Amino acid sequence: MSADKKLRWGFMGCASIASKNYLAIKSSSHNEIVAVASRSLEKAKAWAAERKEASMRCYGSYEELLADADVDAIYMPLPTTMHLEWAVKAADAKKHILIEKPVALNCGEYRKIIDACIRNGVFIMDGTMFSHHKRLDKMVEFLKTKEIGELKRFESGFSFMADESWLTTNIRTSASLDPLGALGDLSHYQIRFTLHAFEGEMPTHVAVFCHKKSPDGVPIDCSVTLFYKENSKVATFNCSFVTGFRQWVEVAGTKGRLMVDDFVICKSSEECSFDVLVNPGLTDSHRKVIEDSKRTITVYGCNQEATMFDDFALLAFNRDAEKEKAWRTLTLKTQAVLDACMESVAKGGEGQKVEVVVPEFL
Amino acid sequence: MSADKKLRWGFMGCASIASKNYLAIKSSSHNEIVAVASRSLEKAKAWAAERKEASMRCYGSYEELLADADVDAIYMPLPTTMHLEWAVKAADAKKHILIEKPVALNCGEYRKIIDACIRNGVFIMDGTMFSHHKRLDKMVEFLKTKEIGELKRFESGFSFMADESWLTTNIRTSASLDPLGALGDLSHYQIRFTLHAFEGEMPTHVAVFCHKKSPDGVPIDCSVTLFYKENSKVATFNCSFVTGFRQWVEVAGTKGRLMVDDFVICKSSEECSFDVLVNPGLTDSHRKVIEDSKRTITVYGCNQEATMFDDFALLAFNRDAEKEKAWRTLTLKTQAVLDACMESVAKGGEGQKVEVVVPEFL
Repeated sequence: MSADKKLRWGFMGCASIASKNYLAIKSSSHNEIVAVASRSLEKAKAWAAERKEASMRCYGSYEELLADADVDAIYMPLPTTMHLEWAVKAADAKKHILIEKPVALNCGEYRKIIDACIRNGVFIMDGTMFSHHKRLDKMVEFLKTKEIGELKRFESGFSFMADESWLTTNIRTSASLDPLGALGDLSHYQIRFTLHAFEGEMPTHVAVFCHKKSPDGVPIDCSVTLFYKENSKVATFNCSFVTGFRQWVEVAGTKGRLMVDDFVICKSSEECSFDVLVNPGLTDSHRKVIEDSKRTITVYGCNQEATMFDDFALLAFNRDAEKEKAWRTLTLKTQAVLDACMESVAKGGEGQKVEVVVPEFL
Repeated sequence: MSADKKLRWGFMGCASIASKNYLAIKSSSHNEIVAVASRSLEKAKAWAAERKEASMRCYGSYEELLADADVDAIYMPLPTTMHLEWAVKAADAKKHILIEKPVALNCGEYRKIIDACIRNGVFIMDGTMFSHHKRLDKMVEFLKTKEIGELKRFESGFSFMADESWLTTNIRTSASLDPLGALGDLSHYQIRFTLHAFEGEMPTHVAVFCHKKSPDGVPIDCSVTLFYKENSKVATFNCSFVTGFRQWVEVAGTKGRLMVDDFVICKSSEECSFDVLVNPGLTDSHRKVIEDSKRTITVYGCNQEATMFDDFALLAFNRDAEKEKAWRTLTLKTQAVLDACMESVAKGGEGQKVEVVVPEFL
């Protein structure tokens, strides 16, 4: 492709996350945003105007956006309950799709979306930005060295404190818009990180304690446990809309630990890091801790959102069946674990253990 | 009391933790060790000789140690199944008692020990050293300021990696010696920390996933959840003998977090610290993390084990019914949570939720 060829994006909605990804596209090398649609034409126009995008095409319906022949790909930050309908329509309109998480209400819906994408020969990827950060590659590479031994434990806290009005009005707490609540919004990332850390290994079972639901019955504060074959390892994490902002991960092995304090939204695109500790322990007298090995591994210059759009564009320009399937597989596995989590919540959210089933259709 | 009056200790056993607490007594101001007993006189003599304690009285039975009129207090690092018998005998011999954790197999046994202590007018305290560290006071003080808001989450990982021979031979994995396994050895500290952090508030229920047991059937790798009244908060933590060394705690509130990386055995007695983060969050565009407020609070010069022995000695010299009861209460509450954890394990260790009952007898 020519150096200045750019993938032409249409944004399906102006959710607040769209603002972030607008900036990401502007920071990327192979993308441009050419159109935006909202259910209100005025809103779409205001969004473009706010960004001084005089030439951006604005639509008052998603159908019009999909009819725009000069849009190559759709960015879809819609509420989860709208994903199936609009992703299928986008695929049928021959648009590639970057879809926000959770990708669907369940694997069954995701299958229908995938079927439409494959039928139409378009590419789909979910919007998990940290999967594209080179820091993640560094972390995975480090874990593979086995410097911290066999991996035994994944732990994570991911939360933010919503105010009362957010809890009653935001789409992420609405049963009719985002019924997966904090599991879909936050634990999606935690599950995804386990897949990266454990080289794709899936848990056999999950159990969720749901401590709080929104007035609308959506899980907003949960403790999740993932169980692995033969109890070789365990992942435990929590997601919450009613706890202060945290986004940490710990991966512990038989010989040490990896810690990252900003695993989803890194502290800065100029510089971010993670810590590792190899062979920590105690002196013989149990009076001092040995952790001379603690080191910080720093990564410079990576805007993960921009990288995500560039990774997407490069695949859209140079189609690669294997790589595309790898992304779909990662999404499907994440969704399959989420499905089991939601089933555990549906069974009472009192730690009910549910088997994880990955449907085979990719 | 005179400045140089010292409490005279007899060590009931030469377990490895006794070596650490021998050093603690040597570093303390108000204590001296005058006698040691083992079931083998040779072992007791060797232990004293190794420490060049020529005047230390050595006994080949615990009975002889208890008969020594010049011993004021007993340090008891015996296996848990021996606590009831020997703590009652020590109390009946009018000795004060510092007893290692877990203090008993259950609250019923602890009650019998307490009854004997009260009947004989002696003082008992458990060996949770970090409860005596001034860093803990600083942490509790910080949490009380509500700078990080209402407390919502306690998280902790506490583990070490035992080798195969340890797992089959150490007392802490033996059903007949320490049936509480990693729960008694490690989660005792995590439960205790919740009591300090939450101003004594008890969980109403607990649930344990037991991932691994020793060949002898003792829990050695668990995920624990503590539930509080009206789901106001949650504590989740894990204890493991099959994961690398970790000893961290996070307390998260509605407005921030407190983190400590060495909550049980501090990195150094010269200097140790904890981190706090107030009002962390994201910039409006969700592209940067705001955490300017991160600060480290450092505490200098505190040998927590020596402080524990000095706190003990001062109470032994200046009896104080209220303070003594406060220590007993802390022990009892910890044991009551442990009891519920063990019940959850006994029910299958598959997340069974068990009510926490604190017997009233103090």
